[in-house]
Amino acid sequence: MGMMTANQYEDSLRQLNLKVYMFGKRLESVVDDPIIRPSMKAVARTYALAQDPEHEDIMTAVSHLSGKRINRFTHIHQSREDLVKKSKMGRLLGRETGCCFQRCVGMDALNALSIVTYNIDQTCKSQYNRRFLAYLTYVQENDLTCDGAMTDPKGDRSLPPHKQADPDLYLRIVDEREDGIVVRGAKAHQTGAVNSHEIIVMPTLALREADRDYAVSFAMPSDAEGIAYIIGRQSSDTRKLEAGELDQGNILFGGHEALVVFDDVFVPWERVFMCREYDFAGQLVEIFAAYHRQSYACKVGVGDVLIGAAQTVAEYNQTAGASHIKDKIVEMNHLNETLYCGCIACASEGHPEPSGTYAVDTLLANIHKQNVTRFPYEISRLAQDIAGGLMVTLPSERDFTSDQVGHWLEKYYRTHPDIPTEHRMRMLRLIENLTLGAAAVGYLTESMHGAGSPQAQRVMISRKVDMAAKKRAAKKLCGIKGE
Amino acid sequence: MGMMTANQYEDSLRQLNLKVYMFGKRLESVVDDPIIRPSMKAVARTYALAQDPEHEDIMTAVSHLSGKRINRFTHIHQSREDLVKKSKMGRLLGRETGCCFQRCVGMDALNALSIVTYNIDQTCKSQYNRRFLAYLTYVQENDLTCDGAMTDPKGDRSLPPHKQADPDLYLRIVDEREDGIVVRGAKAHQTGAVNSHEIIVMPTLALREADRDYAVSFAMPSDAEGIAYIIGRQSSDTRKLEAGELDQGNILFGGHEALVVFDDVFVPWERVFMCREYDFAGQLVEIFAAYHRQSYACKVGVGDVLIGAAQTVAEYNQTAGASHIKDKIVEMNHLNETLYCGCIACASEGHPEPSGTYAVDTLLANIHKQNVTRFPYEISRLAQDIAGGLMVTLPSERDFTSDQVGHWLEKYYRTHPDIPTEHRMRMLRLIENLTLGAAAVGYLTESMHGAGSPQAQRVMISRKVDMAAKKRAAKKLCGIKGE
Amino acid sequence: MGMMTANQYEDSLRQLNLKVYMFGKRLESVVDDPIIRPSMKAVARTYALAQDPEHEDIMTAVSHLSGKRINRFTHIHQSREDLVKKSKMGRLLGRETGCCFQRCVGMDALNALSIVTYNIDQTCKSQYNRRFLAYLTYVQENDLTCDGAMTDPKGDRSLPPHKQADPDLYLRIVDEREDGIVVRGAKAHQTGAVNSHEIIVMPTLALREADRDYAVSFAMPSDAEGIAYIIGRQSSDTRKLEAGELDQGNILFGGHEALVVFDDVFVPWERVFMCREYDFAGQLVEIFAAYHRQSYACKVGVGDVLIGAAQTVAEYNQTAGASHIKDKIVEMNHLNETLYCGCIACASEGHPEPSGTYAVDTLLANIHKQNVTRFPYEISRLAQDIAGGLMVTLPSERDFTSDQVGHWLEKYYRTHPDIPTEHRMRMLRLIENLTLGAAAVGYLTESMHGAGSPQAQRVMISRKVDMAAKKRAAKKLCGIKGE
Amino acid sequence: MGMMTANQYEDSLRQLNLKVYMFGKRLESVVDDPIIRPSMKAVARTYALAQDPEHEDIMTAVSHLSGKRINRFTHIHQSREDLVKKSKMGRLLGRETGCCFQRCVGMDALNALSIVTYNIDQTCKSQYNRRFLAYLTYVQENDLTCDGAMTDPKGDRSLPPHKQADPDLYLRIVDEREDGIVVRGAKAHQTGAVNSHEIIVMPTLALREADRDYAVSFAMPSDAEGIAYIIGRQSSDTRKLEAGELDQGNILFGGHEALVVFDDVFVPWERVFMCREYDFAGQLVEIFAAYHRQSYACKVGVGDVLIGAAQTVAEYNQTAGASHIKDKIVEMNHLNETLYCGCIACASEGHPEPSGTYAVDTLLANIHKQNVTRFPYEISRLAQDIAGGLMVTLPSERDFTSDQVGHWLEKYYRTHPDIPTEHRMRMLRLIENLTLGAAAVGYLTESMHGAGSPQAQRVMISRKVDMAAKKRAAKKLCGIKGE
Repeated sequence: MGMMTANQYEDSLRQLNLKVYMFGKRLESVVDDPIIRPSMKAVARTYALAQDPEHEDIMTAVSHLSGKRINRFTHIHQSREDLVKKSKMGRLLGRETGCCFQRCVGMDALNALSIVTYNIDQTCKSQYNRRFLAYLTYVQENDLTCDGAMTDPKGDRSLPPHKQADPDLYLRIVDEREDGIVVRGAKAHQTGAVNSHEIIVMPTLALREADRDYAVSFAMPSDAEGIAYIIGRQSSDTRKLEAGELDQGNILFGGHEALVVFDDVFVPWERVFMCREYDFAGQLVEIFAAYHRQSYACKVGVGDVLIGAAQTVAEYNQTAGASHIKDKIVEMNHLNETLYCGCIACASEGHPEPSGTYAVDTLLANIHKQNVTRFPYEISRLAQDIAGGLMVTLPSERDFTSDQVGHWLEKYYRTHPDIPTEHRMRMLRLIENLTLGAAAVGYLTESMHGAGSPQAQRVMISRKVDMAAKKRAAKKLCGIKGE
Repeated sequence: MGMMTANQYEDSLRQLNLKVYMFGKRLESVVDDPIIRPSMKAVARTYALAQDPEHEDIMTAVSHLSGKRINRFTHIHQSREDLVKKSKMGRLLGRETGCCFQRCVGMDALNALSIVTYNIDQTCKSQYNRRFLAYLTYVQENDLTCDGAMTDPKGDRSLPPHKQADPDLYLRIVDEREDGIVVRGAKAHQTGAVNSHEIIVMPTLALREADRDYAVSFAMPSDAEGIAYIIGRQSSDTRKLEAGELDQGNILFGGHEALVVFDDVFVPWERVFMCREYDFAGQLVEIFAAYHRQSYACKVGVGDVLIGAAQTVAEYNQTAGASHIKDKIVEMNHLNETLYCGCIACASEGHPEPSGTYAVDTLLANIHKQNVTRFPYEISRLAQDIAGGLMVTLPSERDFTSDQVGHWLEKYYRTHPDIPTEHRMRMLRLIENLTLGAAAVGYLTESMHGAGSPQAQRVMISRKVDMAAKKRAAKKLCGIKGE
Repeated sequence: MGMMTANQYEDSLRQLNLKVYMFGKRLESVVDDPIIRPSMKAVARTYALAQDPEHEDIMTAVSHLSGKRINRFTHIHQSREDLVKKSKMGRLLGRETGCCFQRCVGMDALNALSIVTYNIDQTCKSQYNRRFLAYLTYVQENDLTCDGAMTDPKGDRSLPPHKQADPDLYLRIVDEREDGIVVRGAKAHQTGAVNSHEIIVMPTLALREADRDYAVSFAMPSDAEGIAYIIGRQSSDTRKLEAGELDQGNILFGGHEALVVFDDVFVPWERVFMCREYDFAGQLVEIFAAYHRQSYACKVGVGDVLIGAAQTVAEYNQTAGASHIKDKIVEMNHLNETLYCGCIACASEGHPEPSGTYAVDTLLANIHKQNVTRFPYEISRLAQDIAGGLMVTLPSERDFTSDQVGHWLEKYYRTHPDIPTEHRMRMLRLIENLTLGAAAVGYLTESMHGAGSPQAQRVMISRKVDMAAKKRAAKKLCGIKGE
Repeated sequence: MGMMTANQYEDSLRQLNLKVYMFGKRLESVVDDPIIRPSMKAVARTYALAQDPEHEDIMTAVSHLSGKRINRFTHIHQSREDLVKKSKMGRLLGRETGCCFQRCVGMDALNALSIVTYNIDQTCKSQYNRRFLAYLTYVQENDLTCDGAMTDPKGDRSLPPHKQADPDLYLRIVDEREDGIVVRGAKAHQTGAVNSHEIIVMPTLALREADRDYAVSFAMPSDAEGIAYIIGRQSSDTRKLEAGELDQGNILFGGHEALVVFDDVFVPWERVFMCREYDFAGQLVEIFAAYHRQSYACKVGVGDVLIGAAQTVAEYNQTAGASHIKDKIVEMNHLNETLYCGCIACASEGHPEPSGTYAVDTLLANIHKQNVTRFPYEISRLAQDIAGGLMVTLPSERDFTSDQVGHWLEKYYRTHPDIPTEHRMRMLRLIENLTLGAAAVGYLTESMHGAGSPQAQRVMISRKVDMAAKKRAAKKLCGIKGE
């Protein structure tokens, strides 16, 4: 099989028998559910663009296993150029979809496992890497979307897994059999989970021996026995259920996140990539996190959309020439491009790991993500400043099309004879969507907590900077010797 | 009549025959509409607290006209203490309701008109102040809620009113009759409009002679012939239509904003407070704006709620003892109290105007509001940081109460045996409500644009600071003489 | 005696026999030393302005002891108005001198002692308040400048006083005699110490019983036996020793700070205001700190000078009309006036203590000071932005007056035929003085650490905000009962 | 000749006959002047490190002209890797010297001219590139330090060169002869000017035909007839003249800046690289500026020193374990590494120009420099926070070594028995040097204005971002077609 088209991808999802719950009920057709569908369309965009010759260089790569051209989302990075192209792919898709396109987390899980399974084998004389490469071949050949599942519910944050009142608050091995293991627990905040063919599970933090049953990594089909999904709500989610489209803001794409429950799921050995090697849990977390913090390159692309929307509204309002508006647009761009510098720099400063996989610079990936926890909020604030108050006082599309009041909206929300009132409304709804609505979940809160909350990056920054060298430099310059 | 109770207030609204449209249809019972009702309840709180002896000092005042105790929202400030209490009333009600309680704009309109009608009379030998005081007596005696309507749709922001393609894009006098005037136009972003008994119209910017028909101020009953309301959408507004309450976040209160259309409304002379005195339009805008910028004291109270929510969630998550969490709570408080300093300082530095009304310090009121366009966004960002990602991935209340998946949510979202999972969910929904949901409209975007967008304050700051004195001081100190 | 004139003040200092060291040598005439003299002139300004009818209301008060008009710097605050006037006095003098005028710390010490001596007496049946009032009468009658000495050297910050390797690292009682006590130790960072007639010592932190010898407060003449001063260096301090004046920037005023050593100083009982009442050390620190954090009102006045200087340079450079320059001036003013709001609000929200003295609102005073640790840095950054690079590449006054190169500077640094090159140079030197030079010590680093470093304010903020009320408000709104 | 050693470099400077003025007098020996010498030592470090095998890869390159190994400061970038190594060289030297090492501006001038002379020739059929390459060969063979001189005095900023009251306020051609041209004018803010063998002049802004005499670029020996230097003052500059070393902070290195006067200097044709081709002046400015904005990579290295100093002082003070101190160190590192991302990203995203020279990404280089105008100020503020107030109240080295008071300083400034008081003093002086002293000129004000003031970058950012693509993306997502 080669790379799938967007339609083939959609069809492939229809073959799955996922147990998905939303608003207290199981969904009959996940793909066709109006709240889920825009998120599926966003993932489908990662297939469609890979077919587009214009984007081939960014969206595809040549597999180091098969030598075939594959979607970059299934590729193991073989060079710094690969890493840089990954960042550019993220920005491209963020701009194309204006939301989270969900497929990066599986790519990051695959790359992290390509390194860590190799490292475990070196120490433990195990066979994880062979198993992993067989799995990778399957993923690449079938052009699959994988969910990378790391975050456990965590319960009481002050206690390690085995001390929790309920031991299942971190996913764990509850049974080991001849043919595999049985796992129980849940993974929270799983972006795009129900648009995935596969789910790749990893532990969520460094572990000690007492927590060895929690040191587990594996991959399973997303519709495996015992796996269930409960969809999280987003701000303004039900606008997707309404007649009309305008009020959705982004009328094409969206995202979703789910709680994934593993209710005593059996995993055959060939799908197990870590089994109680607790010493390596921390390494897997750190490497995955670094890749995934790089992945927040996508927010630069979403930022492009928001900046474009703010500029367009300013033009509609006839304020685009005001010096303070121009300055705010510059500031939005400045912040957005500062983010871009981060995801490019951590990639271009990448290095090969023993497995041959190229890893990003961990320090700079954390720096990048830390800025992502800040700048989108300020960009949003500036977008709201430029948009004006109408963004939150605009009546509904149904008012706009109503015989009774539509003419008043048409009349009083017009800013210029040549600019359709509807265009202004659409653009304001897009800004609302990105800064207060469903897409704000991805652009703001996910920017805060995805790939680790801000403090997680700060801990890594403090561990990765070379303070000794800095202190030596300072002491030399002021004449302190012999400390 | 004395001060109304909350119930009397609700009953009084039921007497009105308002033409209110939402989702393309006219509402049959405004008061009972589930989207409007929480906003009505927020206004009702201004009546209820005035009855509470604990809050009498803040919530009420003694009328300088009648000598009777009245709700402070209908009072004309007679001292600096009155101004300070107004700021404290705003914070109190913001904390009580967690949203916009809507009644301040009418108070600010009354106070501004008490000054400007007096000033016009001094110059023009007119009778506006007498008319105004008669109207004020009526408002105080009946304890009415007034909407203060200033913001016109404005069309092309680069053109003055009379140059607009459609002359109605600013509200204007279209006819003058023996018994009064006829006006046409609209006022946008009218907070709490349909919870008001009266609507007080003012011009939205300084005007020149060519725009004299736009120099008009008057008050009318909210259900007068020709007035119609079209309700604006808010983020997640329709959660109020759903079964259950938890997903609303703030289960008690809310806000609304409306476009108010004046379709050739007749205004009798006794209700007209400015009629073509274009020289005074700018003064009215400036004085009203200063009062109304002070009124953003309320956001300090909403900030109290958000800080309390963030702290509570941290306690639920067992992270409240982490140093970085404690530091973020300090920072949220620091920003919130910095806002408080602004609304207190502009009040305590107030002064009497010729009419006897006390006015806030214009410069400091603008400083205060400028900070309000910034700090709530940062407080929200920090609240989202502390809350964790679950705030945007939490399934619905219907999932929580579902037989099929409710037990999984109960199990996996629990953080401590003693803390009900439902409490954690409620608190996260409140933070969502305040930072991404319906209340974010008030706490964030209204903080940005209400009482004038940030650049409006910057223009006032540059006009009100005494640059000459600063330059003199600098020149003296570095020895420059004789410039 | 009534209030002293500036000249009388200078003369009174000449009567003192201070032991002052600078650059390794004892100064012969402190008052005439070119590095010290500008700081003495700044204190003298507090005497001069008090004689000026224009400033009488702000600069003077009526003593509650004698009923006579006194300099406000020796006054015990009797009302909120007094507290507000104190803040205004600070801004006024900051603008007049462009530096630290040094006299507030004594005022704050007097006010704090007026409260705490009273409180100790209530608990301990002691006579401290009587002693203190006698001392206060002496200070008021002679219009003295007092140094308030709190900060000990502190040694190892992780250890309490009695655990230090050297017990003298906090000032302590080393002997108690029939007629008084003997103290040893030092006080660091003593602003304006050698311009003071008196030195009032207080402990620097809350103390436990093991540290009871450190719980000591007293006042002594600044030239008492055993007291010595070692002057600290400031950036560019020796420019004051050079010929010419232009390169000093502020050619009139300056500041200084000293280490004050107490080498077994005898203090008679009448001058002792706390002696081992360790329970009250924390209270004295907290009350003094709140007053002194308010005192950073002065930085608003220094900010006025810097804003005036930046505006003037922009005018000299013909850039004052550029929109980005105007916006930066607005931002500088916005930050400066936000500081002003803080020092006004904590004063206008003041309250009477049991002694009758009015105290500032502790929370808001800490909020104010916390902002002072931030905004002057940003104001300085913006001033440097507006000033242009010449501020740090400008040759010396000696080059400007040199036959060899002066004509080149005259030619190449001229921006406009009507603006003397020398004026531009003077103004740039003033900005350098305030942002990198001797005055930056006061405007920046002292803003950071004076009256307590930033973390000290954060600790107080976390202690003074009412978190319980905030949590209650949040729980009520989202429907959590019975916690 | 090969690369010079540091000693050879110093000797080579002694051969020059520079006319240098400071404090109104001509310097007799520039190299030995105590104020200039530390800046010469900083440049010498660029020679010394190039001899060090550890740094060869970063500090040297292979000439594309001669194939010989040369100092990277004389190299024309041949690849993205060269550009990245340039950024790393900047950081390395910034950390080594803790100041401006001055040699980058010549490198940037050479690279910019390698592109623009080629481009002029393509259009004008001129021979500038041949001349330039001959000159470059001379520079590379002799391992010369070049000053790149761009900034004119500019007079009235609102007027173009030819409209200035004095036409010399921009450097210009005043005569053209058979053998060359004669130029007059000055270049301001010339960093490291008197440590250079050569001075390369470029125009300072885009020019129109009326300003064609100002479109001139050339190179001359730094001691050519008619060239004079007037050294600018720095904060605390004269501490270098004092006995002792401790009070200097950075006891090894420093910087200087000069006004360079061209008093009718004759330039032979072989040294002329642009002569009235005004169309190319803007291009030369833009390309040089992009390179030079990248060069602010050096501030990351200076930041390393400041962070190391802050951490060391915290350890001396026994506060390094406090959570707020640790968090501030993380923040300093975060900001510093964000800067690093900028200088790496603009390099790794470089591209070849028609001449074959690799140029940085202009947009990202401007983003980088814009951040440099902000973050060092915040890093400095945090360093002052951590350092404590003693940084600005510390007595002089002469006090420390004095028989009279030295023992008191030794006693009272000690924080731990194992940490020499002197070490603490040295480290505090280093922080003072970097944040308020001579090095603050480079770390702060030069970061603001060097390579163009902040607004210059903002103009470039607004010109270089692709707003059309952003608007298209936004319109597509909200369903706007056909605009």
